[in-house]
Amino acid sequence: MSADTRPVRAYLSGLQDSICSALEAEDGRGRFNDDGWTRAEGGGGRTRILAEGAVFEKAGVAFSDVSGTELPPAASARRPELSGKSWNALGVSVVVHPRNPYVPTCHANIRFFVAGAGGPSPAWWFGGGWDLTPFYGFEEDAAHWHGAARDAVAPFGATLHPRFKKSCDDYFHLRHRGEQRGVGGLFFDDFDELDFESSFALARSVGDAFMPAYRPIVARRKATAFGEREREHQLRRRGRYVEFNLLQDRGTLFGLQSGGRTESILMSLPPLVRWDYGAAPAAGSPEARLVDFFLKPRDWLENLK
Amino acid sequence: MSADTRPVRAYLSGLQDSICSALEAEDGRGRFNDDGWTRAEGGGGRTRILAEGAVFEKAGVAFSDVSGTELPPAASARRPELSGKSWNALGVSVVVHPRNPYVPTCHANIRFFVAGAGGPSPAWWFGGGWDLTPFYGFEEDAAHWHGAARDAVAPFGATLHPRFKKSCDDYFHLRHRGEQRGVGGLFFDDFDELDFESSFALARSVGDAFMPAYRPIVARRKATAFGEREREHQLRRRGRYVEFNLLQDRGTLFGLQSGGRTESILMSLPPLVRWDYGAAPAAGSPEARLVDFFLKPRDWLENLK
Repeated sequence: MSADTRPVRAYLSGLQDSICSALEAEDGRGRFNDDGWTRAEGGGGRTRILAEGAVFEKAGVAFSDVSGTELPPAASARRPELSGKSWNALGVSVVVHPRNPYVPTCHANIRFFVAGAGGPSPAWWFGGGWDLTPFYGFEEDAAHWHGAARDAVAPFGATLHPRFKKSCDDYFHLRHRGEQRGVGGLFFDDFDELDFESSFALARSVGDAFMPAYRPIVARRKATAFGEREREHQLRRRGRYVEFNLLQDRGTLFGLQSGGRTESILMSLPPLVRWDYGAAPAAGSPEARLVDFFLKPRDWLENLK
Repeated sequence: MSADTRPVRAYLSGLQDSICSALEAEDGRGRFNDDGWTRAEGGGGRTRILAEGAVFEKAGVAFSDVSGTELPPAASARRPELSGKSWNALGVSVVVHPRNPYVPTCHANIRFFVAGAGGPSPAWWFGGGWDLTPFYGFEEDAAHWHGAARDAVAPFGATLHPRFKKSCDDYFHLRHRGEQRGVGGLFFDDFDELDFESSFALARSVGDAFMPAYRPIVARRKATAFGEREREHQLRRRGRYVEFNLLQDRGTLFGLQSGGRTESILMSLPPLVRWDYGAAPAAGSPEARLVDFFLKPRDWLENLK
């Protein structure tokens, strides 16, 4: 069966709302706004933001469905045969910045791209994944997260989880800091190895598994007491998140360079951030252990085997 | 006379200290640290930071003097004849983030580059300038700033000030926001149009004029009363500063990509920053006037002619 955009659109739109509902339930107080927008060149989106919640200082869940009649050459450098064809890009992106430094930040994305739909040889692919960025590391949280990632991908082939896990570690590496952004998760792109139905099922499985992977970690950590020290550490670590997104993240850079909607793209940036020259946690502290132990590529499921 | 690095080094090193002394005097409480560093490939620097002063929340004044035996091809794309030659890059960079939102942020830089020194045809150039980023605009501040810029450059040729002013406006333009970073000032690069002595004198004139341009503005605004509203506006506008530096600033991007010292390069980032989705000042407010009137390229000396 060839690519059909309609069920993908319906799935992603529903995923946006189900993630917002789950985050609202976990927060208990905050509510998402609903900001629809359109794009002159075709399509539009819905950006939903929860600000100043009880648990979540800022959470963004964005759906976009943008299209055009001619794919620019720059967007099809690796597949020159698609240049000039009509295209449609759909996606849901999630970034959650919790208030409590013991609750990790998380990011998820599911996207679908199709070019030349309706023509003789349409090209399509899925991409996505999710990654976790703790400020204080807990091995049980990392193991739960990666176990959920493994289980989401397992039905689609034994080789996929190790590949997607490694792609995530490779992608979320801050080169100028020599650090991982977090403890990783899943990352895949340009995925069309299975037939359309199975590839879509894989994307749905990853999308559906995201909140069950994240929510128990939030529930477990959100009541942990914290003070100024933990908050300051969190604000500084959020600086690394900004650095990654503005210096390296391909979606952010491509979106801004191609005239995307700035506020929707930059909803990923944390609400409050610090940069202090030469700030470094004391050796042996939990803050130092984050960098020294948790922010290294690692097999978090090792002890569960 | 051909390029002589020694007097440039002595001048820049002295400029760093005189700027630090002036900022300490204006602050009244804060003191600069003094963090020397060396670079395995050659050279090093001194990064001086004043944190949590009375007037300045964070100020960085960095001197660097780095060298190598073979200029990489990427660094000499526009002058391929320099590839493989020995090189030396010297510079002083200043970024000041005041606490009071009525005091503008400022940035200054003076840099010197020489390749093939001692050989038959050494190449050298100067670069630099300074630009002002207010959170609340004042026409008299902008006029004073640009008057000082004009006067610093005037002795070296009548065409230079308009060119350097326009280069500054062109350079400090946030493309994805459609905004200027601030009210501009001076910007020049690859400058070797005059002989070495005159070019060096121009660089000194710009360097020497910086504190007399900035300090009266600080003195005039630092006691202005402000509250939460002004502080929040300042923190959000600082987000634009981060966006510019990490998305567009050539020195920052080249420095990080080429393995420069991360903490010295990123000393430019503000101490505390906010990003709020869709935040926009009320029409007609002073916060809106900043963007609508002050953050446009403009002839600030018009009324003084």
